[in-house]
Amino acid sequence: MKIFDEIESEVQSYARSFPRVFNRAKGEFMWDEEGRQYLDFLAGAGTLNYGHNNSIFKHALLKYIKSNGITHGLDLHTKAKGEFLQAFNDHILKPRNMEYMVQFTGPTGTNAVEAAMKIARNVTGQQNIVTFTNGFHGVSLGSLAATGNSHHRDAAGVSLVGTHRMPYDGYLGDNIDTTEYLDKVLSDSSSGINSPAAVIVETVQGEGGINAASIKWLQNLQTVCRKHNILLIVDDIQAGCGRTGDYFSFEEAGIEPDIITLSKSLGGYGLPFAVALIKAEFDFWKPGEHNGTFRGNNLAFVTAKAAIDHYWTNDQFSQEIKRKGQYVSERLENIVSQYGEGQFTAKGRGMFQGINCVNGDIAGKITHHAFQKGLIIETSGADDQVVKFLCPLVISDENLKKGIDIIEEAIREVCEKQDIPEKNLYFEAS
Amino acid sequence: MKIFDEIESEVQSYARSFPRVFNRAKGEFMWDEEGRQYLDFLAGAGTLNYGHNNSIFKHALLKYIKSNGITHGLDLHTKAKGEFLQAFNDHILKPRNMEYMVQFTGPTGTNAVEAAMKIARNVTGQQNIVTFTNGFHGVSLGSLAATGNSHHRDAAGVSLVGTHRMPYDGYLGDNIDTTEYLDKVLSDSSSGINSPAAVIVETVQGEGGINAASIKWLQNLQTVCRKHNILLIVDDIQAGCGRTGDYFSFEEAGIEPDIITLSKSLGGYGLPFAVALIKAEFDFWKPGEHNGTFRGNNLAFVTAKAAIDHYWTNDQFSQEIKRKGQYVSERLENIVSQYGEGQFTAKGRGMFQGINCVNGDIAGKITHHAFQKGLIIETSGADDQVVKFLCPLVISDENLKKGIDIIEEAIREVCEKQDIPEKNLYFEAS
Amino acid sequence: MKIFDEIESEVQSYARSFPRVFNRAKGEFMWDEEGRQYLDFLAGAGTLNYGHNNSIFKHALLKYIKSNGITHGLDLHTKAKGEFLQAFNDHILKPRNMEYMVQFTGPTGTNAVEAAMKIARNVTGQQNIVTFTNGFHGVSLGSLAATGNSHHRDAAGVSLVGTHRMPYDGYLGDNIDTTEYLDKVLSDSSSGINSPAAVIVETVQGEGGINAASIKWLQNLQTVCRKHNILLIVDDIQAGCGRTGDYFSFEEAGIEPDIITLSKSLGGYGLPFAVALIKAEFDFWKPGEHNGTFRGNNLAFVTAKAAIDHYWTNDQFSQEIKRKGQYVSERLENIVSQYGEGQFTAKGRGMFQGINCVNGDIAGKITHHAFQKGLIIETSGADDQVVKFLCPLVISDENLKKGIDIIEEAIREVCEKQDIPEKNLYFEAS
Amino acid sequence: MKIFDEIESEVQSYARSFPRVFNRAKGEFMWDEEGRQYLDFLAGAGTLNYGHNNSIFKHALLKYIKSNGITHGLDLHTKAKGEFLQAFNDHILKPRNMEYMVQFTGPTGTNAVEAAMKIARNVTGQQNIVTFTNGFHGVSLGSLAATGNSHHRDAAGVSLVGTHRMPYDGYLGDNIDTTEYLDKVLSDSSSGINSPAAVIVETVQGEGGINAASIKWLQNLQTVCRKHNILLIVDDIQAGCGRTGDYFSFEEAGIEPDIITLSKSLGGYGLPFAVALIKAEFDFWKPGEHNGTFRGNNLAFVTAKAAIDHYWTNDQFSQEIKRKGQYVSERLENIVSQYGEGQFTAKGRGMFQGINCVNGDIAGKITHHAFQKGLIIETSGADDQVVKFLCPLVISDENLKKGIDIIEEAIREVCEKQDIPEKNLYFEAS
Repeated sequence: MKIFDEIESEVQSYARSFPRVFNRAKGEFMWDEEGRQYLDFLAGAGTLNYGHNNSIFKHALLKYIKSNGITHGLDLHTKAKGEFLQAFNDHILKPRNMEYMVQFTGPTGTNAVEAAMKIARNVTGQQNIVTFTNGFHGVSLGSLAATGNSHHRDAAGVSLVGTHRMPYDGYLGDNIDTTEYLDKVLSDSSSGINSPAAVIVETVQGEGGINAASIKWLQNLQTVCRKHNILLIVDDIQAGCGRTGDYFSFEEAGIEPDIITLSKSLGGYGLPFAVALIKAEFDFWKPGEHNGTFRGNNLAFVTAKAAIDHYWTNDQFSQEIKRKGQYVSERLENIVSQYGEGQFTAKGRGMFQGINCVNGDIAGKITHHAFQKGLIIETSGADDQVVKFLCPLVISDENLKKGIDIIEEAIREVCEKQDIPEKNLYFEAS
Repeated sequence: MKIFDEIESEVQSYARSFPRVFNRAKGEFMWDEEGRQYLDFLAGAGTLNYGHNNSIFKHALLKYIKSNGITHGLDLHTKAKGEFLQAFNDHILKPRNMEYMVQFTGPTGTNAVEAAMKIARNVTGQQNIVTFTNGFHGVSLGSLAATGNSHHRDAAGVSLVGTHRMPYDGYLGDNIDTTEYLDKVLSDSSSGINSPAAVIVETVQGEGGINAASIKWLQNLQTVCRKHNILLIVDDIQAGCGRTGDYFSFEEAGIEPDIITLSKSLGGYGLPFAVALIKAEFDFWKPGEHNGTFRGNNLAFVTAKAAIDHYWTNDQFSQEIKRKGQYVSERLENIVSQYGEGQFTAKGRGMFQGINCVNGDIAGKITHHAFQKGLIIETSGADDQVVKFLCPLVISDENLKKGIDIIEEAIREVCEKQDIPEKNLYFEAS
Repeated sequence: MKIFDEIESEVQSYARSFPRVFNRAKGEFMWDEEGRQYLDFLAGAGTLNYGHNNSIFKHALLKYIKSNGITHGLDLHTKAKGEFLQAFNDHILKPRNMEYMVQFTGPTGTNAVEAAMKIARNVTGQQNIVTFTNGFHGVSLGSLAATGNSHHRDAAGVSLVGTHRMPYDGYLGDNIDTTEYLDKVLSDSSSGINSPAAVIVETVQGEGGINAASIKWLQNLQTVCRKHNILLIVDDIQAGCGRTGDYFSFEEAGIEPDIITLSKSLGGYGLPFAVALIKAEFDFWKPGEHNGTFRGNNLAFVTAKAAIDHYWTNDQFSQEIKRKGQYVSERLENIVSQYGEGQFTAKGRGMFQGINCVNGDIAGKITHHAFQKGLIIETSGADDQVVKFLCPLVISDENLKKGIDIIEEAIREVCEKQDIPEKNLYFEAS
Repeated sequence: MKIFDEIESEVQSYARSFPRVFNRAKGEFMWDEEGRQYLDFLAGAGTLNYGHNNSIFKHALLKYIKSNGITHGLDLHTKAKGEFLQAFNDHILKPRNMEYMVQFTGPTGTNAVEAAMKIARNVTGQQNIVTFTNGFHGVSLGSLAATGNSHHRDAAGVSLVGTHRMPYDGYLGDNIDTTEYLDKVLSDSSSGINSPAAVIVETVQGEGGINAASIKWLQNLQTVCRKHNILLIVDDIQAGCGRTGDYFSFEEAGIEPDIITLSKSLGGYGLPFAVALIKAEFDFWKPGEHNGTFRGNNLAFVTAKAAIDHYWTNDQFSQEIKRKGQYVSERLENIVSQYGEGQFTAKGRGMFQGINCVNGDIAGKITHHAFQKGLIIETSGADDQVVKFLCPLVISDENLKKGIDIIEEAIREVCEKQDIPEKNLYFEAS
């Protein structure tokens, strides 16, 4: 550990919650240098939907490396890229009647978001992009303007420009459809909200506290966008790639975003990879306008193709996720009804769920207890008040049960030791 | 090729200059699907200093993958990260008496630059960052504000804030030290240039046209920064990792930047990786303030360590680069004296050199001819007027000669076929 | 008229609605060059509360000019300024227990708003200022960022930074107190609304369509500001100086703004004059930080003092305004109940009232008809849909009746000639 | 004085240098309440070119007020406005072959600058406006972005966007024509200076330290603007209306700005008034896009017309100013050659001259001594190091001599009492 103390920057965060040196991982497990095993309900913050070092992808990866396949390809055409594109088109886009151009951005989520926001602005000639309370889209300056969290925003050190914030689904209470408010300000030439290029939205806000928008709200949001000729960008970086049950998190809503960002589990094996999917009619890019040295991370293309080929050529995997998601829902409902004197609430959709624990102090104690019992799990939300379940989608039923059992136990222990404070009035709606 | 036409975005650029599907690479060579071999003088735009699929790193990489080492680690402490840090400290920092904290940013150069600019702003409480004409630092919005190229800037679609542009070394002619102008505006409370947090500079501007700042200018720049209490950020993403002869491009100048960004060849094998090095006294980060899903790309840590262990434990590799750089200098001087009626000029330092070809049309013809002869080489500069030599540093003497021979031949052919136009008055200085 | 066509810019606006050349005015009347008389229900857009060329002020003004009193005084102490300050302190501030420092800004409302926003930012160190839908605060860039109207905003030609827009009272319907929404986003560290320096608000939005905030809403707004340590700025430029019945429009609400802007009728005689009133504890200005050549328009100090001395040393004038305001309310209620098949609505408070006419087309026809009958009256609101009654407060009862009679007649004629379209769903709330 | 201490904001500045209560003024003289007479070499910071309470204008003003002429006219056509336009067209524009549209902006210089910058941005669709070191254009946020002084800029409290700063004539030394640098960055697509809408420039920088651009530089600046299709805005607020000898300060250079701003002495009598003159082909304004309550300050129209009629129908007044300017030049040259051991320098053009006194401390002592002797005179420049001669243009020869005599005496006294420090290296060029 000494070298980390010595020369790694203070910016580190997860390493503080889980102060071990990890050296091995497989499926839903990680091991530290001293051989201790941990069940991983963090899963790379949604990057390891297929588990750590998935054997199928690993095989493809080793083969590719051994054969001296192109590793770093800038944006050159390579065999690996071509095969990824073919698989993505054949098994993801075409079966869903989706016609999009694929932009290989820098291999990080925030870079895909930057690209999406740029092209939306260029297509429309407008600067303003509507974003939502509690949204998270990355921390490079373009994306950060769309991100709600003040911890990250305050670090900018400079004005964040070009976005306007609107309330997410449920933010103003259950009886108010916030898309009506959006429609109103867009219809009102004197509302002071500049005509926007686009709306950028997560269907489930992960970092924001596992806030799942209703299907109806997503549909209404698309309707408002169409009415005012503004583009709809779905940031599916965390919720996509199967997390909610379908490949894209918005499939259930039947909406057709103009731009979609994907990253995290897209590469399958945890390798840096990100794309922006752009409806063909909006692919206004000029050559190289948005670029980046690592936009051709071919090792990720290889594992991404393997992931599609293995998991997404039929709906079996999707059914499996939904079945497990149902199990998680039942367990969480059961837990919140038992503990916290009715103050805990379950949130989320599919395998993207969480328990709102009133405040960050309680949630932190719960995850801390869980870690003592061998479970890696994190919190999210404005006050870190939500315990976030993000285990690999390929987790065994047994380990899924085991992980939730640990949390339940941790909650019981925490509740026994402390009084739960009065609910914070203003966070109950979201 | 069909799939690329069908669904890859129009944003692609290199693929237009080199319209092949590549499927294999080794050292300084790439091969396309039809088996044609190409000598690579582009080298991932400076990412492949150690050549494609370097066998030493490949061995370490395969071993790590096979052992189920952590692949994706967020910012958790991992064995691979610890070993990289140890090697980097032992062989790069300590021998140079450099005390810096290492921040693992998102694994792209632009993300390291975003982090550097943020921390500089937070440390000083100032927003303004001084940047230079023809600089290139990336295209996410924070970095893009520091980038000079209008092709990229115009794609922002929104105001780029928080930077002020000053003339780079030589921009105002040979007789003017532009750091004096910088000193003057910083000394003048009515200059209209807000008190800056930092200066960000490349010692050699790669994308800007292989403009190498003089050693004296870099030293003066540091002096001005110290005088006005502003941080000096050296963006060593393209010029660092040995490209100019030393590990850091600024070593020859003996300056001590407050923040250094590294990426591209840092990972060794072409895998996405980037860091910001921050003097310990400026490591003001709060936990997680700047984050990113792929900031723990452990495969890159493994190959980065291998690169340090193999190439940087003594000065042999550095000597080798300088020797080859000398050879390149001599050849380029010879070429420019022969062709273009005295209008071509050689530029650069170490293995980071180029030929200014008066305009982009001529330079484009030269690189196009070269490609016909099996050489992959690109242009840079405001008008793509500079042919940029960025071959792997590990290239054999024979292949280095061969590559330059091809360019010389291409230049001869282009010159024979056309008149070189009048020099553009305003570009000769830079 | 020829010279206007020849060389006056196209930017002119009122001159288009009332295409006459005026040459004389007195009280509530204006005359054009051909001797036609007009009853003035526009009154300098709220600048002529005391009527045109008020004899009392005129007398003081002539005397001062004849005596070679200082005309232009920069910010030098002058006798006229001292006497104004004394009268303002004795008759306006002290009787209301208000302790404020008086800043003489440039003599325009927008300049007072710029000053108010600057000092709020400097006091708090925050950039963000909360503004409201349909607010109007001026069109210089600082104020324009706070103004809602897109006609004006789009003319900026550059990003308007540093404000966040929230819904005004009633904007989300009658059942929603929008200050609760404000409180929620300020309490939520992940709301994406940066911690603000201040809120700027009009108690009655004049240009925005005569939207009068409820007393309760104003009180709640102050409560939210106090809770979050943000300054409350009341822009009382149009609603102040007696327009709603009291000297300050917020007196009825019993709130204590941290900063107040005044202009328009402040000078009394229609001469350029504006001030920002700043609570003493927030008067952080350094000498000359905010300046302007005409901030010492001494002629206006003379008439401003005369206005205070004559109208505001007891509550008689205030009672008079309230009585007339009551009359206007009754007449307007009566009118809207008779015409437009229940679609017209009356709005406003005191002598600051209007009729919402469904759309701008109808409202424009009404004011056009009125002008044919000798009444000058304008529209306001996002779609110019509100006929705005802004007659001098000193108008005789007879002429007040006469003016309203003309409008009633105009409405009747317009309604007889046309069907009123369906109400626009989204504008009924405000 | 008590009331000023009690309730006038700390923002006051001139009142600190000249702590008297003034109550009367005529021509080049002011008197305080205690009857002391002062010779005024500040003259409203350039607003009182025709002296205080000029009898000719006063007569016209009194007559107009007595006749109940329109005082406050919004932007309505009035007789007074029409007559001003006619006089301005007949005697100012036409004789100079100038075809411009007149925009009546808010009656302050900063508002005219805001309008000029807006229209330039709207005409070109570009945001960026090139500004110069040491320029001063006002302190509302749009103008402030163009102003160089950090004392004013730092008070903004928010990012100032949309301008790029270039070195003014002489800023980089005598041998460098800074318009060549401007041409270079505009010609270089990678310079990082966004394509500008306009350049805004003062021909003589008053607040910046009486820096007079050379005629050649102004001509070259126009050439560069024309070459790159960017608008040339001359801010003639302080230098115009005869201050340099001609009505417009740029007449000697023979240039034809696309937009001109005028204020200060435009109204003649010191009343708030400002206009933007826009070449007809650029008058793209939509009705009311830029507005302001006091843009029809008719009293100023009356005195402005009187000023034109009396002083500008032939070139007599212009000759008179030039003769006096010549006298000032001779006297200042003589003074600087005698005192400060060669360190003082004379600067400026026409009746717009100053003495650079090495630093603000010395200059402040000089003006303080002068005030003790009954002369009101101020400093300007980044460090308040320039004693600024801005007396009324109508001053008698005797009083002009007397004022300069006082300054000479004050300089002698200050020099006798102190050593002049080493010249600041970086301020000598400007």
